[in-house]
Amino acid sequence: MTGRRHSRAVFAGSLGIGGEHPVSVQTMTKTDTRDVEATVEQLLRLKARGADLVRLAVPDTEAADALASIRGRVDLPLAADIHFDHRLALRALEAGVDKLRLNPGNIGSHERVREVARAARDRRVPIRIGVNAGSLEKRLRRGGVTAAALVESALSQAEVLESVGFRDIVISVKAFEVPIMLEAYREVARLTDYPLHLGVTEAGSEAAGSVRSAVGIGALLAEGIGDTVRVSLSAPPEAEVRVGKQILACLGLCPPGPTVVACPTCGRCEFELEPVLRAVEERLAGVERPLRVAVMGCVVNGPGEALKADIALAGGGGVALIFRHGRPVRRLPLQGLVQAFLQELDDFLARA
Amino acid sequence: MTGRRHSRAVFAGSLGIGGEHPVSVQTMTKTDTRDVEATVEQLLRLKARGADLVRLAVPDTEAADALASIRGRVDLPLAADIHFDHRLALRALEAGVDKLRLNPGNIGSHERVREVARAARDRRVPIRIGVNAGSLEKRLRRGGVTAAALVESALSQAEVLESVGFRDIVISVKAFEVPIMLEAYREVARLTDYPLHLGVTEAGSEAAGSVRSAVGIGALLAEGIGDTVRVSLSAPPEAEVRVGKQILACLGLCPPGPTVVACPTCGRCEFELEPVLRAVEERLAGVERPLRVAVMGCVVNGPGEALKADIALAGGGGVALIFRHGRPVRRLPLQGLVQAFLQELDDFLARA
Repeated sequence: MTGRRHSRAVFAGSLGIGGEHPVSVQTMTKTDTRDVEATVEQLLRLKARGADLVRLAVPDTEAADALASIRGRVDLPLAADIHFDHRLALRALEAGVDKLRLNPGNIGSHERVREVARAARDRRVPIRIGVNAGSLEKRLRRGGVTAAALVESALSQAEVLESVGFRDIVISVKAFEVPIMLEAYREVARLTDYPLHLGVTEAGSEAAGSVRSAVGIGALLAEGIGDTVRVSLSAPPEAEVRVGKQILACLGLCPPGPTVVACPTCGRCEFELEPVLRAVEERLAGVERPLRVAVMGCVVNGPGEALKADIALAGGGGVALIFRHGRPVRRLPLQGLVQAFLQELDDFLARA
Repeated sequence: MTGRRHSRAVFAGSLGIGGEHPVSVQTMTKTDTRDVEATVEQLLRLKARGADLVRLAVPDTEAADALASIRGRVDLPLAADIHFDHRLALRALEAGVDKLRLNPGNIGSHERVREVARAARDRRVPIRIGVNAGSLEKRLRRGGVTAAALVESALSQAEVLESVGFRDIVISVKAFEVPIMLEAYREVARLTDYPLHLGVTEAGSEAAGSVRSAVGIGALLAEGIGDTVRVSLSAPPEAEVRVGKQILACLGLCPPGPTVVACPTCGRCEFELEPVLRAVEERLAGVERPLRVAVMGCVVNGPGEALKADIALAGGGGVALIFRHGRPVRRLPLQGLVQAFLQELDDFLARA
């Protein structure tokens, strides 16, 4: 891992973004913001899943006004997503949101943006300049949507905010094409010290979009770039949070919770591994503490992984060996293995 | 994207690995290699899904001998996975495999490895030195499993092979921990010009393992490191191929085939996007040619993504707009949208 890029810190409510603050995980509600009940319910679920900040669409004044009731009912930093109409940003600020996202591609004149910046400054609310390849300013799209154009869009909007002394800025330069977003983020990371919000935009379905996001966001984080992330999936926002946290966890950027090492199985595998793995993952769904479980099919890597695991199972010579903290403690018959290993796991969790 | 690291090329049958050859996608059969029918069937399926090379477990002489029949029935580069017993490598060579994988952590004395190297040299078969954190040599494990220890294991085995003039070497230094594998691959990339096989070992279930693999493999590829990849999942090998190809495709390292851009949906979304997306992905499952489809919920990024797509759908003002090559061509009612858009897509595919 390359050392983390130095960035200034901003605060969205209680959440520090940039500086020494841990990289945070965002998502966005997929409810109609005007439906306060449904939105609050989704926000509470997302908080329980570990979202650090959640953004809400604000397509009209009714949605902007709903933010006040929502804000009062959920103890979680909230960001308002603003497009086209700067007055919605002003109303969202009045409603008490903790952060604004403005899209320089559609927010209009500099004077309007400055008006929002002054209001945000007075309330100490940061603004994300959220550039997106799909909605870049026309003048910047002429040579095709390039990384340079994304960076230019972000930096010229930053200048507008800076012109009224506003510096609580977060920047994102998202694209669907990973090479373009990598280049854009690397360049903006070099040119500014604003914290960066990472994302691959419109990444796609849960399966394909997770891989695309993990490649783009993961590569930047591994280079030390990035202060907050959002995985964009055409899937429930809980999936976005889960994948975002996984990306951070596997780079050692957030507490790992339970980790399950499992071999891919090959012609050496001595038992049906997938049912065991599925059962273990289900059992651990509610567990938050760090715990390393290894489920290994044979003796090639089994004992080595068992050494590093808190509890492990490895096939060997027609039975399954159970290890605790690297030491073999028991043999289990392959018959009824799923239930027997779950019992071992429960017992381990109860004692440890 | 950083420029690709220079590596020497080796050949596994017809497959070039390293040099200017495209990054290839590997997987491993999960059948019992001694079961020739089941193994051949799986290999043919994997070939159809686009696997460039497939590895087979060779736990005993019966499995090694089965390789000859399998080799005769499948036109796909095959690698034999050897542990513990160097005589299995010799038998696999006699059976006609295109590549060997030796694990320096368990393959035994230098003299045995040299014997394998001489036989492989005579048949022009490359050897992968497959180091794995779970099965590192004892002498290297003393200070814990570190990146430096993985690199040391690979390079000292390379010296053994080089001592008989063998240089058709591929190296892998896998670990479950992404920061460790990143560091190990970066270091080995710096110290040798052998082609590198990338992987995150025992990555886990399909969902979690895809993300972990995409982060580790993707970050290295984005730095220009890596000549062939294997995604290790506790899932069918078809999933490993799919995820491997996705990682390459989203970095522009292999022909993209169909790409579906889809917005994550938020409070702005004007229609039920997930059913449309699912239907589109299903319809495109058999399509191999490059094609960009965008499925977008609203007018924020919809028109911008539509501009870049071959065919697109975007919500707007209570209807769905269909675009072809960036131009709006039709409005569809939201009622019955899935079927109507599939018809548009079929029509597009038939004409284009």
